[in-house]
Amino acid sequence: VPLLFFPSCFCVCFLTAAADLRTSIAAFVEGRQAAIVGELVDLLAIPNVAADRENIRRNAAHLRRLLERREFKTELLETAGNPLVYGELRVAGAKRTVLFYAHYDGQPVHPAGWKQASPFTPILREGRFEDGAAERPISQTRYEKDWRIYARSASDDKSPVIALLTAVDALRANGRTPTSNIRVILDGEEEAGSPNLAPAIPRHRDKLAADLMVILDGPRHPGGRPTVVFGARGNLAIELTVYGPKFPLHSGHYGNWVPNPAMRLTQLLASMKGLDGRVLVEGFEDGVGTIPADEQALLDEVPDDPEGLKRLFGISGHERADLSTLQRALQRPSLNIRGLSSGFVGEQARTIIPDRATAAIDIRLVKETPGAAMAEKVRAHIRKQGFHIVDTEPDDQTRARYDRIVRVQARGETEAYRTPASDPQASALVAAIEKTLGTRPVRIRTSGGTVPISHFIKTLGIPAVSVPIVNFDNNQHAENENLRLGHLFDGIVVIAAVLTM
Amino acid sequence: VPLLFFPSCFCVCFLTAAADLRTSIAAFVEGRQAAIVGELVDLLAIPNVAADRENIRRNAAHLRRLLERREFKTELLETAGNPLVYGELRVAGAKRTVLFYAHYDGQPVHPAGWKQASPFTPILREGRFEDGAAERPISQTRYEKDWRIYARSASDDKSPVIALLTAVDALRANGRTPTSNIRVILDGEEEAGSPNLAPAIPRHRDKLAADLMVILDGPRHPGGRPTVVFGARGNLAIELTVYGPKFPLHSGHYGNWVPNPAMRLTQLLASMKGLDGRVLVEGFEDGVGTIPADEQALLDEVPDDPEGLKRLFGISGHERADLSTLQRALQRPSLNIRGLSSGFVGEQARTIIPDRATAAIDIRLVKETPGAAMAEKVRAHIRKQGFHIVDTEPDDQTRARYDRIVRVQARGETEAYRTPASDPQASALVAAIEKTLGTRPVRIRTSGGTVPISHFIKTLGIPAVSVPIVNFDNNQHAENENLRLGHLFDGIVVIAAVLTM
Repeated sequence: VPLLFFPSCFCVCFLTAAADLRTSIAAFVEGRQAAIVGELVDLLAIPNVAADRENIRRNAAHLRRLLERREFKTELLETAGNPLVYGELRVAGAKRTVLFYAHYDGQPVHPAGWKQASPFTPILREGRFEDGAAERPISQTRYEKDWRIYARSASDDKSPVIALLTAVDALRANGRTPTSNIRVILDGEEEAGSPNLAPAIPRHRDKLAADLMVILDGPRHPGGRPTVVFGARGNLAIELTVYGPKFPLHSGHYGNWVPNPAMRLTQLLASMKGLDGRVLVEGFEDGVGTIPADEQALLDEVPDDPEGLKRLFGISGHERADLSTLQRALQRPSLNIRGLSSGFVGEQARTIIPDRATAAIDIRLVKETPGAAMAEKVRAHIRKQGFHIVDTEPDDQTRARYDRIVRVQARGETEAYRTPASDPQASALVAAIEKTLGTRPVRIRTSGGTVPISHFIKTLGIPAVSVPIVNFDNNQHAENENLRLGHLFDGIVVIAAVLTM
Repeated sequence: VPLLFFPSCFCVCFLTAAADLRTSIAAFVEGRQAAIVGELVDLLAIPNVAADRENIRRNAAHLRRLLERREFKTELLETAGNPLVYGELRVAGAKRTVLFYAHYDGQPVHPAGWKQASPFTPILREGRFEDGAAERPISQTRYEKDWRIYARSASDDKSPVIALLTAVDALRANGRTPTSNIRVILDGEEEAGSPNLAPAIPRHRDKLAADLMVILDGPRHPGGRPTVVFGARGNLAIELTVYGPKFPLHSGHYGNWVPNPAMRLTQLLASMKGLDGRVLVEGFEDGVGTIPADEQALLDEVPDDPEGLKRLFGISGHERADLSTLQRALQRPSLNIRGLSSGFVGEQARTIIPDRATAAIDIRLVKETPGAAMAEKVRAHIRKQGFHIVDTEPDDQTRARYDRIVRVQARGETEAYRTPASDPQASALVAAIEKTLGTRPVRIRTSGGTVPISHFIKTLGIPAVSVPIVNFDNNQHAENENLRLGHLFDGIVVIAAVLTM
């Protein structure tokens, strides 16, 4: 059916071949549903919290076997933490080498919140448990697209690994050869921040060399179309603590005379953002400039539903007067207050001048605004408001000398990354998906959130894109994580398209 | 010795008589120390938390007996809560009637924090326990001035009652007659906010009628001189909650697009006060005007030690550029942020756009700025900043309609009161203390804190002053409340002066 709507006629024969690929892969998947789901369920049954070293090793060994079954040459790359599972499948006449990244560890679990015996005993439901979907025995000969597997890492991030392996199987079963050498690196510490991933590069540069990196992680756009993501914002987390008297004072006895740190903190924070939502820190958006026309087109094509989101969130307007769409807003660095604390509110409130007031802030970075320079700009802004910056609790001498004192604490920094939409390899990938699926993928120029592997991506120095395949309502990182099977089955086709691009 | 420094010569003979009063009362106290302390200790041994109705009744009955022993006519004035203990001592040839107010209930106790078996088993120490002072058997024949009684209500507010009764005894023992009829009203719910005190007035107007009300509560000025307080600031407590999305959102995925309620709250709060500490709410100080010269003189004479306070508090400056002294600052209404809360800070911080941000505010009122009008000014200011004010959680319709939504909750309101320093009765009281003690009392035009009886004071419609006698470092309202005995002994002389003014 999508063919009927496809606007370009000059490439019909190629399209037909691509559509053939789609049909043949889909048919393979249809006939092998039980085996595919069975392979996923076996993998999900191995607990995979990064801190659980023993089970992590079991996952790694299991994944090696799954790769070897597809004739990958495999290796465990040891790190200071959990091992990286590495695999390589060389192809005669390959046009390029693609490095696929996925992770095999999952978020920590709080079993009490799960609607099943254990997050590591996968169950099958006929839909979303929030909608009252019934459970079914997990072994079936056929699975409906709307059925879901519930288990930790069902979506994040084990099913993409199964999708990749199945795509290789499907091509082989159809007598097709991938057009790229395939390299796979599976991270065992992504949910723990991937602390040992970037340092592994120098030791394994040869194994990781590639023309394109494809990240298999994250959800598809909510609209349901195949999705390609070109980059992610970074994050600079800082905490500001403004000091008042050394101990809380009676606000009646001293109010109007002893300075109030909560008021001074709010004045400082308010100085950072105008009522129109623009950040007033000097140079905050320096270098961001105008987005090239081709990338601007990307933003405008994303089928977001702002009115639906506003209804869902219960808001009537957006933060920045000059950035009306979500995609435009995500192309710029943001300054967000994620926490405020001083004294007490509600029933606990006491009539005091608090001794301190704290704000936790996260600044989302874009490629043009590296973290170190941004941190310096924020500090300069704070100084310009008349504050003396300290790194530790102020001592008596400091208190006696400075009227406005703020502690600035770094709380983590991750850089942004972004591959140009015009990159030839990335463009080829988008084109291959478009041809095979018969629909242009949603192209996300910059994903708003931050990924812990951005440092790894930047260090590799190759173009990188994400090809997320799972459903957006997968309860990622939360209880009752799940995978909609239709997304897995469709994802296999998408990855097959990437493998033959 | 103080006589040597007294500057006026024309009233030497009167002064001599006054000094005689001081000497004779002090001698009486000196000879009766054991009985005075014993009477206080017996009273302290009766638990007096307002909610403990049974023991409160025991206190009331005990106090009645103590009053009757001094030939007061007594009565329990029943209220919806705890009874008021009333006593009257009529005096032939009285110049006036003075109504003394004190309270017999005490703050709730957390025995674990006390350095003694029970807050209601008084103990004696040779000084402050913070300084390592040793305990002594509580029965002694003589007590040093620096020794302290530790117990709940030792200072707040049972010792002032004992001081008043002992002053009556002392005058009688010296063959002197009070110059005023004495009326006493003892509140059993002051620490619970005195909810039944003001409503009792209409029923007992005749009994409460007087020319002057003298409140026996609170600490002397830290400098140690006798102290007279002419008024207290009121308090208007409000809570502001600014609403963001209906649930916390990922700050990466939505930062720059979904409005942040914490930022909007800080902008709102910062709009209320300039960097010079002046409140920017329109009309905030309307009516306060210029302080009359005689009252201004009061302020300037208070022997505060601002540099000492700054060192103690660890601050280098004061809140308002235009109000350098503490006493000047306390003559004006203040706007204080007593609490801030939104999302999480510190280790709990998560990268979210919080769903709400709350500030607890207390506005100290002065006589010229009644609470209801002040609340309306604050609401007008909030509206002027573009906020829609709601009284409850906003519903979907309200959320869809208004961009900036804030809930304004009233959290209590108490009016200020103030007796003019020029009031003849108050002036006579100050003069009597000055003559008897040989030193001018510290005169506090407005105490910064709020007293729950201000509504009672205002309803009575008579001049009212406080004559606090206890030590300022008494751990009022906290664990290890104590009374320095020297303050009690001196306080008896001060009250004797008031009784013969």
